[in-house]
Parts: sequence; structure tokens; C-alpha cells
Amino acid sequence: MRVTVSVAIAGASGYAGGEIARLVLAHPDLSLGALTAHSNAGESVAAHQPHLAAHPAIVGRRFDATSAPALAGHDVVFLALPHGASGAVAAALAEVDPDVLVLDVGADHRLVDPQAWRDYYHSEHAGTWTYGMPELLHAGERTASAQRALLADTRRVAVPGCNVTAVTLALQPGVAAGLVASDDVVAVLAVGYSGAGKAPKTHLLASEAHGAAVPYGVGGTHRHNPEIVQNLQVAGAQQVRLSFTPVLVPMSRGILATVTAPVAEGTTAAQLRDAWATAYDDEPFVHLPPEGQQPTSASVVGANTVLVQVALDERAGRAVITCALDNLVKGTAGAAVQSLNLALGLPETAGLPLLGVAP
Amino acid sequence: MRVTVSVAIAGASGYAGGEIARLVLAHPDLSLGALTAHSNAGESVAAHQPHLAAHPAIVGRRFDATSAPALAGHDVVFLALPHGASGAVAAALAEVDPDVLVLDVGADHRLVDPQAWRDYYHSEHAGTWTYGMPELLHAGERTASAQRALLADTRRVAVPGCNVTAVTLALQPGVAAGLVASDDVVAVLAVGYSGAGKAPKTHLLASEAHGAAVPYGVGGTHRHNPEIVQNLQVAGAQQVRLSFTPVLVPMSRGILATVTAPVAEGTTAAQLRDAWATAYDDEPFVHLPPEGQQPTSASVVGANTVLVQVALDERAGRAVITCALDNLVKGTAGAAVQSLNLALGLPETAGLPLLGVAP
Amino acid sequence: MRVTVSVAIAGASGYAGGEIARLVLAHPDLSLGALTAHSNAGESVAAHQPHLAAHPAIVGRRFDATSAPALAGHDVVFLALPHGASGAVAAALAEVDPDVLVLDVGADHRLVDPQAWRDYYHSEHAGTWTYGMPELLHAGERTASAQRALLADTRRVAVPGCNVTAVTLALQPGVAAGLVASDDVVAVLAVGYSGAGKAPKTHLLASEAHGAAVPYGVGGTHRHNPEIVQNLQVAGAQQVRLSFTPVLVPMSRGILATVTAPVAEGTTAAQLRDAWATAYDDEPFVHLPPEGQQPTSASVVGANTVLVQVALDERAGRAVITCALDNLVKGTAGAAVQSLNLALGLPETAGLPLLGVAP
Amino acid sequence: MRVTVSVAIAGASGYAGGEIARLVLAHPDLSLGALTAHSNAGESVAAHQPHLAAHPAIVGRRFDATSAPALAGHDVVFLALPHGASGAVAAALAEVDPDVLVLDVGADHRLVDPQAWRDYYHSEHAGTWTYGMPELLHAGERTASAQRALLADTRRVAVPGCNVTAVTLALQPGVAAGLVASDDVVAVLAVGYSGAGKAPKTHLLASEAHGAAVPYGVGGTHRHNPEIVQNLQVAGAQQVRLSFTPVLVPMSRGILATVTAPVAEGTTAAQLRDAWATAYDDEPFVHLPPEGQQPTSASVVGANTVLVQVALDERAGRAVITCALDNLVKGTAGAAVQSLNLALGLPETAGLPLLGVAP
Repeated sequence: MRVTVSVAIAGASGYAGGEIARLVLAHPDLSLGALTAHSNAGESVAAHQPHLAAHPAIVGRRFDATSAPALAGHDVVFLALPHGASGAVAAALAEVDPDVLVLDVGADHRLVDPQAWRDYYHSEHAGTWTYGMPELLHAGERTASAQRALLADTRRVAVPGCNVTAVTLALQPGVAAGLVASDDVVAVLAVGYSGAGKAPKTHLLASEAHGAAVPYGVGGTHRHNPEIVQNLQVAGAQQVRLSFTPVLVPMSRGILATVTAPVAEGTTAAQLRDAWATAYDDEPFVHLPPEGQQPTSASVVGANTVLVQVALDERAGRAVITCALDNLVKGTAGAAVQSLNLALGLPETAGLPLLGVAP
Repeated sequence: MRVTVSVAIAGASGYAGGEIARLVLAHPDLSLGALTAHSNAGESVAAHQPHLAAHPAIVGRRFDATSAPALAGHDVVFLALPHGASGAVAAALAEVDPDVLVLDVGADHRLVDPQAWRDYYHSEHAGTWTYGMPELLHAGERTASAQRALLADTRRVAVPGCNVTAVTLALQPGVAAGLVASDDVVAVLAVGYSGAGKAPKTHLLASEAHGAAVPYGVGGTHRHNPEIVQNLQVAGAQQVRLSFTPVLVPMSRGILATVTAPVAEGTTAAQLRDAWATAYDDEPFVHLPPEGQQPTSASVVGANTVLVQVALDERAGRAVITCALDNLVKGTAGAAVQSLNLALGLPETAGLPLLGVAP
Repeated sequence: MRVTVSVAIAGASGYAGGEIARLVLAHPDLSLGALTAHSNAGESVAAHQPHLAAHPAIVGRRFDATSAPALAGHDVVFLALPHGASGAVAAALAEVDPDVLVLDVGADHRLVDPQAWRDYYHSEHAGTWTYGMPELLHAGERTASAQRALLADTRRVAVPGCNVTAVTLALQPGVAAGLVASDDVVAVLAVGYSGAGKAPKTHLLASEAHGAAVPYGVGGTHRHNPEIVQNLQVAGAQQVRLSFTPVLVPMSRGILATVTAPVAEGTTAAQLRDAWATAYDDEPFVHLPPEGQQPTSASVVGANTVLVQVALDERAGRAVITCALDNLVKGTAGAAVQSLNLALGLPETAGLPLLGVAP
Repeated sequence: MRVTVSVAIAGASGYAGGEIARLVLAHPDLSLGALTAHSNAGESVAAHQPHLAAHPAIVGRRFDATSAPALAGHDVVFLALPHGASGAVAAALAEVDPDVLVLDVGADHRLVDPQAWRDYYHSEHAGTWTYGMPELLHAGERTASAQRALLADTRRVAVPGCNVTAVTLALQPGVAAGLVASDDVVAVLAVGYSGAGKAPKTHLLASEAHGAAVPYGVGGTHRHNPEIVQNLQVAGAQQVRLSFTPVLVPMSRGILATVTAPVAEGTTAAQLRDAWATAYDDEPFVHLPPEGQQPTSASVVGANTVLVQVALDERAGRAVITCALDNLVKGTAGAAVQSLNLALGLPETAGLPLLGVAP
């Protein structure tokens, strides 16, 4: 007998919310309950999420207004809200529904250090929830199990940032194996536009994006910096120094991270490959392509899959790791569902696509 | 007890073959057998289809050479070969494996009239197989059942052309209902590049496609013309005259067809909407959005879904129907799997995604 | 001795205004004066038009607020304002500066028939100015001179709509030569996003545009309809019936129009080609490629050039004309500068690029 | 009296050759002579370079076969040939036409060190020509004049690689000012597809490029490595260590380089800005936007302009420099014409666009 888990989504008219809905509707153990929105409350779901419009569960539906009562009564609630908005909704929910599993795909509950939150977000910290990255290595681990154990035992999950996931998964095997220095990491990421959200802004217009590669958050100002540092420290890094630059490129989904870090003199390509293979050979969603085959963001569109490749640049004295993922799946909604599966004791891979939609 | 159906794919290194493999790997009743190729025989599947690379059934695999023995011994064989190549392979297969279900996604077996084949393809006709469009209306039908019956009883399926599917599904409800004149149809289609295949040609380069809308097959020379005419005649049209122009636009997947046809003086928008709703309200994969909401090709990426909208232009005296589909799914691989489901008595929708990957 | 003509641009922070500025800065006879804006008044020009930022005339400049005094005192004023806003500014300008040459790239002064304006724009008509399409054929003409004569003698120019220019230039040779029937014209246009302007709207976001072909104004509701009808009537058409559908495709600039119209039985391809060649062989900016070579929008990016090809579809009984132009150049700013050249007695081609930026 | 300089282009059917032709046709002092090609000899120029097709000098022309006699008799010859092919053509030309100015946009004559050539190109070195980067700082210079003097006195110019130009112009002010350490430079570049040329290859197809960010030459294998090292040494660097990774992104033109290098403890943002401003404030084609405004590749499409921004990441201890240019203009054809202007004593900026075509 199969038990169906009911799910509500707050912020369901945005890109993250729409992607969560897509995965929930295709998940064998989940059923879609409330879909709530803020300024789009009362409007047609199909008009805002036309890629879901043909599904019988969507035809004719309208968004409810986001509120604790609207979200209450489900087994699981996803919060896909602007930064800073999750705390209040979560608190209200906890009162009416203390046992509900809540997954926050926003930033509010990711950071452990309140000061880091204040430095980058300029507001009060809402608290720290269990970090929703099952593959996160803890110091001393060569394959990830500690984080999975935490997730199996929680009702509150903070889903990682998309860029953070790319840089963390790219680099952590080398950190855990002691093969790369974490005090001079340089990461440059080609990122698609959906990560910037659905609120209309001039610099996000199609006309502006066409033929454009556009850096932003240059000089260490991007809010994903402290979260990456935090993860590398969990993986065993002592001092972390990171130069991190995202560059918007003309695609809607996808991240291709190029991450480099110094290696000790004499380090071999085989040593690097061995460390990355050890970390990821048993991971269901992180795949190391054959040597020399570079990942591309197009290969993982729509999938929860991460492709990671590692190379050695002997002249430069650096490891060069490239990492591709879909920012809306493994970078957001897929990581959330994977964490949900663990928290509810479902198979970790349930309902999560492994194959990209390409070309 | 679930019986698993074994599947072979000939031409598995191309775009159509890769898409069939994607659907087969996610289908609950199918298991992936031989993957064969011609010039890429012996090469790594992951290198040619990197979006499938993380799947355990693909890791380490290489393409076999396309031949009847390599394809024999499966329950189902998909042929994703260049035009003109299917006939010989199918004949060889029939000798060793008379009961196998063969689905040809190439053009060879679509046309009923050998002269139409010769006029457009300049070679001998290979014969006619059961046409793999379950939604095709037959004269007198208002909802499609006759074609489904034919497909339930066949071992040979000719999968329709992608542009043909878009124009046929756009227009046939009006033809069947006698509301539009089929003797002056004008269809212009914005189409993505994957429909042009994976063989490298200068005019298909990314640099050429960027910022470019490029018409081709202008003036009625495109080979999809006679197939559209054939379908509209099945739906009941007497004389069919068609102006058909595809325009390549900068996307990899997708077709957005704009199809217009004259309506009789006094025809109302409600009459039109009613005819289209009658034809499609019970179709699992063809969806009519709410009035005034236009389909976009992005909404159906990766899905077997077709979105069709109909409008009346009173000043012009024409119905204007817009239709979006993914050329690799409903336009090729999805139509093939849908036909397979019918031919094998599986649920028609088994293994076929209804939700698009968007944005 | 060379006289320099001073130019002001109202609405200089938008796409049309920026493109006019680009052409003015490169024009040998023009000098750039006031740049005004509405909500962006006071802001840095370089921030809003970064493609102009390296020019010494732009470094350090800020937008003035749009007003008659700010625009007064120049030889020429371009109005690149939202529809409905040009009338008042033009009237105020006329009082302080009666001899100034004013070119309106908005719609306000294009239509001759006040009722057509009211039907499509739902406001009062601002009046009719000289229509800024030098190549417009007048009834009885086989090559265009009458419109040039009107432009040489005016101080008020209404610059045509971009889609209108594409459809008119595509079809008028056939109308003028009596070879095509204008009572059943079907035009479908693949258009880039810059034509939709720079105001941020959700449906214009890069994430929405990616992989999307999106029809709009379907069913004859687009405001460019009456302007096309008006032009074809100038060219000699009696009754005009037009089905006109623009489809947004993922590019920032460019229009590729596919226009079809019935031809009389027995019409030959040579007759068609002859009519189009007669009309355009002496035009500096309209080019008929060799037979069979289709225009693409990419070929004319940044240029004032229009590519027009004509084919005969005998089975369909229709001429199929394809036409490519850059909506911001020949579709807006280039047409304006070309009209300015005529109105001021400069060489018609002065300062106007003939070569596209491609690939 | 104006003297016209006659120009021949070898390799005129490719992207670099087409772009040189575009600039030559718009240059006030140059006239276009022979256009030669290899496999496309005898074919229509308009068919291969449709963006030039409307120009009277192109209508009806066909490519000659590349040979010394076909190229002889001009004042200037541009070589836009595959790597390794320039040497023989140049030698043959020198015999018949010793005084001709030859500009090689290929790699053959860029490197000074024959061993570096052999290491990266695995063939014999063809020799070293004057390096065509007028803005290249020589050790001890804070603004560039030495390289200009060399170019004013040469008949043989090696035009720099496009990625090389981006990284060199990004970093050299800091090297020259002694503000950044050149022994741990990390450069990651988002690059468009035209840099990969016009020969059809599967990985360059539009379908593959769509939605894809694709790294290549990972691990220090890209041939532009030694050329960057060479330039930084000219600018005064002692030891250069460089990690260099280009990433193909979905655009046809453009490079956006993100270059980081360590700064000494206590270095201020003002010091950095001052060094870059000193180097570039008088450069006609290199522009430093206002502080905090990031360059985008879209802003320089079609222009010879380079946008460079510098930021300080104090936490990371690195300067982060972003640099945008059009690989076909400042990265190839524009640099060639700029060098030609210097070599012939023409104004350095003659015929070179400063304004980008955007959006």
C-alpha cells in the first residue's frame, strides 16, 4: 500500500515554485495541495505556469493567498519566497502545524553564523535549519553520510543556494582529501537568467540578455560567498579565501562553474581523479564523466544531475574543476525534493529525473 | 506482475535516437537493449548523448553497428535513420524477427501515394505503414478513435513528421467540423534547429543561428507538404491547397505553427472554439488553453504535450490557429512511444511526460 | 564647407532613442544635442546606453527632462516617445520653434484615417504627418519617387511601424504590378524582442524568451494592421484583406516576414521576379538576393538594409515573399534618418550603414 | 587629395575574412580588391557573406582561388587562413611584392619563442612579426607608445588572438604599475561561437549551443596560453603563472573575461582604479566605465571598443578585472585595421566603429 504525501507550495507563481510543482506532480508519492502566491493570488495558475497547464490538477486552478491557514493541513510545505519572508510564515505554520515538514528554498535559514547573515543581508538572522545538501562531505568523510543522517531526522530544511551547490560539489572532494588549498579558491560561474527570478527588471529583459555575458556581484559582494565558505569548512577546510564571480549568459537554466584551487607541487592528475571518484562514484545524482570529457549545462536541463570534471594544470599549479547543474532542479527544487525524500524515509531518488532534456 | 518490453534503437547517436532513449529509460514498462549507429559505431554513448551519461544503463556503453542481427531479439525496434535507409533494415529485420514491433521515425513509410513520394523524395517508395498519430481524425469523426484502432492492431508504425503533426493538429478540428476551407490554407512555422538533425552543416552553426530567423523550403518545396495534404484528406477535406513555410529560429527544440484558413461569412468565434474543444477535450496530450492565452513553444519543451489555440479574424475572414509542440517529443520520439503503447496494449500515456521543462 | 545639423532626441533612454543616437553620432552631417528622458531624467546616459558609453560625446552626460524648452534650439528633433505622447510635445515645440524638422518614431501621426486610429488606439487622433517611407510606391508607379518628393518638402515626418515596413516592402511590387491579389494577404512575422520596448514586463524576460516562439496580437488585433492596409492602398490596392500575426522569437533585433498573396492562374516566377526587380533594383537600401537565396534577419543587424525574396508556389496559387530587416534601423531609426536626409537635402544614404553585423 | 589604399583578403569566405571585408568597405581610405578562398573558390561572395550582399562592390562577385598571384598588386594583404597556412603564402607574396603590407590574423607569427610555438602547435615556427596590439604596454610604460612606434615602422603584422587581447588588456595596467602579482593569475572567459570558426563541426551546431555553457581547453592546454604569458612579460612581469579557461556560451560574438590576480595586503580600490585609468584614459578604443558599472559583451558588438572594469575583493586578496570585447572586431579584424592605420600613417581610428550595436 502506497501512502500519498500532501504538499503545499508558498510562492507558487515564481520560477522556483513552478519547478517544485513540476517535480511534485511527477513524484509517485506526493500529491499537490495548496498553491499560494502573493501579488498573483486569485490569478490563473495556467497563465503563470503554462508549462503545467495541461495537467488535470492545474486546469482551472487559481492561486490562493499565501498565509499560514492556507498552507496548514499538509504533510509538507515548500517555501519559495523572497529572502527575508520565510521566517514569519514558518513561525506561524509551526504554531498551527508543529509536525509539518517545511523546506525553505530561500536563503533565510542556510547560514549558521548570524554575523555572516547580517554582513551580507543587512537584517536579523531567522535561525539555522538542517542544510539540504545530502552530498555535503563532513570533515573526515570521503563519501557523504553525516548530512544524510541529519536530513533523515529533521522537519526543517534549508535548501542550498544554486551557485553554492555548484562550487561546493566541484571542490569538496579535493578539500576532504587534502589535495587542494582552500585559501586561494577562484570560482567563475556562467549562469542562466532564471536564477535571477521572475520579477520584471530591465537588465533581465530578453533584449538585454541577447548576445550578452554580464558579470555581477563582482569583488566578493555576492551573497552566496559566506555559504560557500561555510560548506568548505564543514568539509574540513581551515582557512577559506574565495574569489567568486557569477556571469549571466544567454540561457534560462543552468550553471557551469569553473573552480580552481592551488595544488601542492607534485600532485598528479590521477590523485585528483581518484579523490573525486571516491567522493562521487556512489552518489546517485553526481556524475564524473570519462576523463577529458567536459560537462555542459545543456546536458542537465530539467534533471537533478550534477556533472563534475577535474583536471590538473601543472604549469599553473592549480586543479581546475568544472561543474554543471540545473539551477532550478539540483540548484533548488530537486535538492528540496531529494531532502524531502530523506526526511520522509522515501527512496532518495524518488520522483527526481536523472536524464537531461537535450539538445 | 509487470512484463518488461525490450527495445532496440537504430540510429541512436542522433537527436531523434537520443530522445527515444531518454523516453525509453524513463518508461516503466520498457528496458533499453541495443543502441546502434552507423559512422559512430564503436564510440562511447556518453560522448554523443551526454544528457544520458549519468544513467547506469549508459555508463561505459558503446554503440553497436546498425545491422539486422544487432537489432534482432528485441520486442520493439525504433528506426531513427536518414530518409531512404529504413526500408532495407526493416526488410532484413522482418526475415529474422517477423513479430517484432517496428517504429520508423523517418519519412520512408508515411505516404500512401507512391507518386507523392517520388515527386518529393526522388526515389522508389518503400511502402506504407500504419500512421502513428493517434489523434488523427477520420472523416466523420469529431473525436479520434479510428486511428487508435489501427495502431492497436499493427506491428509497423510510420511516425509522422514534426511539422506535419503541428499543422494537422492545428487545423483538423475545423476541417472535420466543416468550419474552415481547406483549399487555401497558409501555414508558417517557427521551428528550432534540432529538427534539422545532428550532421554538421555550415548553415546550422550556432554563429549562423544567433539572431537569425531563416525561412527554407519556400514556395511549396518542403517534403512535409504531401503528408499534410494526406492527413487533411483523411480528416475529410476534399481539395487541399496549402502554402507551407518553415522558418528556423534560435532555439533547439520546438515548433510554433501559425495556421490560417478561410471561414464562411458569419462563422463565430464560439463555433470555432466549440469544434476545437470537441476534438481535444478528451485527448490526453492535446490541450486547448483558456481563450486568448497563446501557446508558446517553451511551455512544451521535453513534453509530449501539444497546445492549440484558435482565434477568428473577422476582417480577414480567416481562422487563425496557433499550435506549439516539441519537435523531438510529440513531433518524433513521444509520438513513437505513444504509438508503441497503443500497439502493445499499454496505457496510451505510459512513460510520456505531460509537463514542460520551463522556463 | 560642411554645415553641421544639430539634433535633439526625446526619449533617448529607450531602445529607439538609443538607436537614433547611435546613427546620429556616426552621421557625417549631424551633431548630437539634447538627450531627454522621462523617468530616467537626471541619470547617466552611459548606464542606460552602455553601447554608446565610450564615445566622447556621451562620457559624463546625463539625460535632461523631456520638455519643449529642452528640445528647442536644434535643427532637428526626434520623438521616441510612447504612443499618444508625441502630439503634445510636437505642439509645444511648434510654438517656440516653427521651422524645426520633427520626426516621430511613435505611431501617433502615421494614419490618415482618424477612425482607424480610434478603432485601434482608442484615443483621439493627433493628425497625419508625411509618411517616412521613401520606397513607398504610389499607384501607377513602378519605382518610388512620389513619396521622396513629399519627404523633400516637409518639416513633419511620421516614421513607419517596423512590422508595417516589412510587410509593405515585401508586397507592394506585386500590388503595383497587378500580379497579386490584395484581398487575401496572409503575413506571419518572426520578430525580435527590442520591438516590444525596454519597459520591464514579465513576458519579455530573458528566461521567458529562451527557447520560446510566442505569437501575439493574434486574430487581427495588432495595431499595425490599419497602417499596412493604408500603404497597400497607396500602392494601388482596391480592397485589402489581411491576416497578420507577429511571433516573438529569441533574438533582440530583426524581423523576418513571410507574406503570401494569391496570384492569377498562369502567373510565372519570372513575372514575379521582374516586378520585384523593377521596383527595387535602383533602391539603395532594398536588395533582392539572387534567386533561391533566402534572406535572414541576421544579415541586416545594425544596417538600414532590407532583403526581399519572392517565390512562386504553383500548387498553392500564391506568391511567397520573405523580407528581412532590422526593426531598430530600417524599422525605426534608420528610416527616420533616411527621411531626415531627404527633408534636409542631404544625400539619402548619408550616415546609414548598408552592411550588417554578422555572424 | 585622398589616396586610396587597395586591399586584398585571403580567406574571405570565413568569419574573420568577412569581418575584415565589412570594415574595409566602410573605411574611407581603403578600397576592396581581391577576395580569395580555398574550398569556396569560384562561389558567390553574397552566398557566403550575406550581410555584405547589398553592397555594390559585392553584388555578382565570386571568390578567386587563394594564391600569391591573385593577392599580388595590392597595397595591403590580409591573411585570414587556418593556423599553419600563412607562412607559405606570405613567403610567396614577398617574392613578387616585397613592399606590400601583410597582416596575418592567424596565429603563425605571434609568438617570439619558437619552442613555445612547437609546444602548443606541434609544427615548425614560421617566424615572428610585429605584434598588432597598439595598446600593449612595454615594461616601464604607464601609457602605450612603444608598440605603436613598432607598428608605424613595419610591413608585417601579427594580429593578436582574441582571448589574448581580452586578458592582456584586462591585466596589464596592474602589472605595469606593480599592483598585481602575475604569478597566480586566473582567467575564465565567456566566449561566443564565431571564435571557433565557420567549418561545420557537431559541437558548434546551434542545437548543441542552445542553453549550453561549455568549457574547453581546460587545464592549460589552450593555445592562447603562451601568447598571454609573452604579453605580460612585455608589460614587465617577471614570472607569469596563468590558469586560463574559455567557456563557450550561446552568443555568436563577444568575449567577457573575468581575470583575477593577487594584490599586496593594503592595496586600495583607488590605487587600482588609478592605475587602470592612467593606462587607458587616452586610449581611443579602451574605455573604463564609471565605478561599479560592469561591462557586458553586448555593448561592444560590431565595435572596436574594449570595456574594462577593475574591482578589489579584499576578503579574497585579489583584484577582479572584467573585460568585454567583440572577438571579430577588436579581437581580430578591428585590431588588424587599427594596425594597418598605424603602419600606413593613417589616423589610428580611421574606419573603426566606436559604438556597439545594441541591444
